[in-house]
Amino acid sequence: MKIVAYEINGAPGVGVLGEDGTSVAPFALSPEEAAEGVQSLVERAVAGEALPETGAPVPLDTVRLRAPLPRPRRNVFCVGKNYYDHAHEFSKSGFDSSAAAGTIPKAPIVFSKVPESVCAHGDAILMDAAVSTTLDYEVELGVIIGKGGRGIAKENALDHVWGYTVINDATARDLQGLHSQWLIGKSQDTFCPMGPCAVTADQFDLGDAFVKTWINGELRQDSNTGLLIFDVPTIIATIAAGITLIPGDVIATGTPAGVGIGFDPPVYLVPGDVVRMEIEGIGVLENRVEARPG
Amino acid sequence: MKIVAYEINGAPGVGVLGEDGTSVAPFALSPEEAAEGVQSLVERAVAGEALPETGAPVPLDTVRLRAPLPRPRRNVFCVGKNYYDHAHEFSKSGFDSSAAAGTIPKAPIVFSKVPESVCAHGDAILMDAAVSTTLDYEVELGVIIGKGGRGIAKENALDHVWGYTVINDATARDLQGLHSQWLIGKSQDTFCPMGPCAVTADQFDLGDAFVKTWINGELRQDSNTGLLIFDVPTIIATIAAGITLIPGDVIATGTPAGVGIGFDPPVYLVPGDVVRMEIEGIGVLENRVEARPG
Repeated sequence: MKIVAYEINGAPGVGVLGEDGTSVAPFALSPEEAAEGVQSLVERAVAGEALPETGAPVPLDTVRLRAPLPRPRRNVFCVGKNYYDHAHEFSKSGFDSSAAAGTIPKAPIVFSKVPESVCAHGDAILMDAAVSTTLDYEVELGVIIGKGGRGIAKENALDHVWGYTVINDATARDLQGLHSQWLIGKSQDTFCPMGPCAVTADQFDLGDAFVKTWINGELRQDSNTGLLIFDVPTIIATIAAGITLIPGDVIATGTPAGVGIGFDPPVYLVPGDVVRMEIEGIGVLENRVEARPG
Repeated sequence: MKIVAYEINGAPGVGVLGEDGTSVAPFALSPEEAAEGVQSLVERAVAGEALPETGAPVPLDTVRLRAPLPRPRRNVFCVGKNYYDHAHEFSKSGFDSSAAAGTIPKAPIVFSKVPESVCAHGDAILMDAAVSTTLDYEVELGVIIGKGGRGIAKENALDHVWGYTVINDATARDLQGLHSQWLIGKSQDTFCPMGPCAVTADQFDLGDAFVKTWINGELRQDSNTGLLIFDVPTIIATIAAGITLIPGDVIATGTPAGVGIGFDPPVYLVPGDVVRMEIEGIGVLENRVEARPG
């Protein structure tokens, strides 16, 4: 099941995407529940409750999509250098403040992005040239946690996944390097496009889904979720060893090769660029880069 | 004014600490407001509203203290290596995955701790020996943001501070090193003691307050807020350059020398240890280390 969060005439809604992707059947949710995107659905699933009833479908082109979790309840967990080819390109880039960890990390590199950096399919990624002009893209599989917990074993980790989405882990490369820890370079306003929908875990082939990015129509990233260095169960078990996961947590699992700094010289995003990302079985997340209004 | 969050018979409250520190005069707040600690006071201040009225004082020893912000609305921002003496001891420790940034960083190193790692004065810091036995302490001045914003100039940055508190940036040193980025090593459950109170910005001498830690009565850290490498205005301006700060954001500003890994060999915390921290003009934050129940 593919689920979208949206607004229509300013009112938030959450609904099931129709088979042909042109309509959405709204769940019966309170405005407060719908404002949080899929959060209340995650919590119902954890409580073993059925999904709310859905109403008459509305055409998708009459709604404005929101991120599946427009404002996660805490920072988005993110994994760095989690595909071999990207680990190599990043290590060579001159921006890798984690170089001491080796080209291929021995353990997942985990950092975060602030919840307010999340934006939706179709929203602008705002580039503020006064802050950074080294804007880069990173397509990533996003995991949405259902049942929380601590001390989760790898073998049971997928029982804690509610669904998946596509995340653009947008990055100001200079700030990522300058500040050594990556929070600032990764958390700039609008730097976490998420969407277009969430797909429930039962409907997603975690071990074999293509992961792609096109910039202005040119294919730049082309990999597969099966190529993660640390797979989703390992990532979940690693974080949850000593940090209690909570329903609605989001984990971005890392990006494959083909980002802007993988080129020599690097090719950064500029206003007007269209960033199109797709993960097989989820959908297309597209955002245009715009100069931040002065 | 010193403000404490607390609970009494399970009901949350927020109040003004009496002059002699033995009583608290409760603000007239709804239970929902009080549950969030000082958050609603911060928001009232930002809106230019007066403080709520206070009721008859109750003896402090009849309440259980909570952290001033028991669950911040997003991860706590933290600064690393922000005192010269600590930057030196950490660089020599073998755990410094930020070594490429140099012993003395050229720009603030900013990472985060999850909101759910926050605990109160008097709460146990839980050590799970199955996860890490390299538990360390770090006393830090915590800044509580009032008015939010983006593109905040250094000159105006202190206008955005609502108050200050004491934070123990507890750390699993092995995990801090292993994962390269510091989120996991810093965000273990209970690893962010905060308190005992918040002091409003007008009552705190930011440029000259002692910062101390005693372990089982032995003085280990003894410094002064005037010795920060990057001062509070610089930290705020750095984060807010491209990340919109929001009321209630918390920033832990870094720790001085004297942490466990500063010793040769390192001296880690073990169950039974009492960690007592004090910042002049705020108060004493004391927590006991306990083994996590199996």
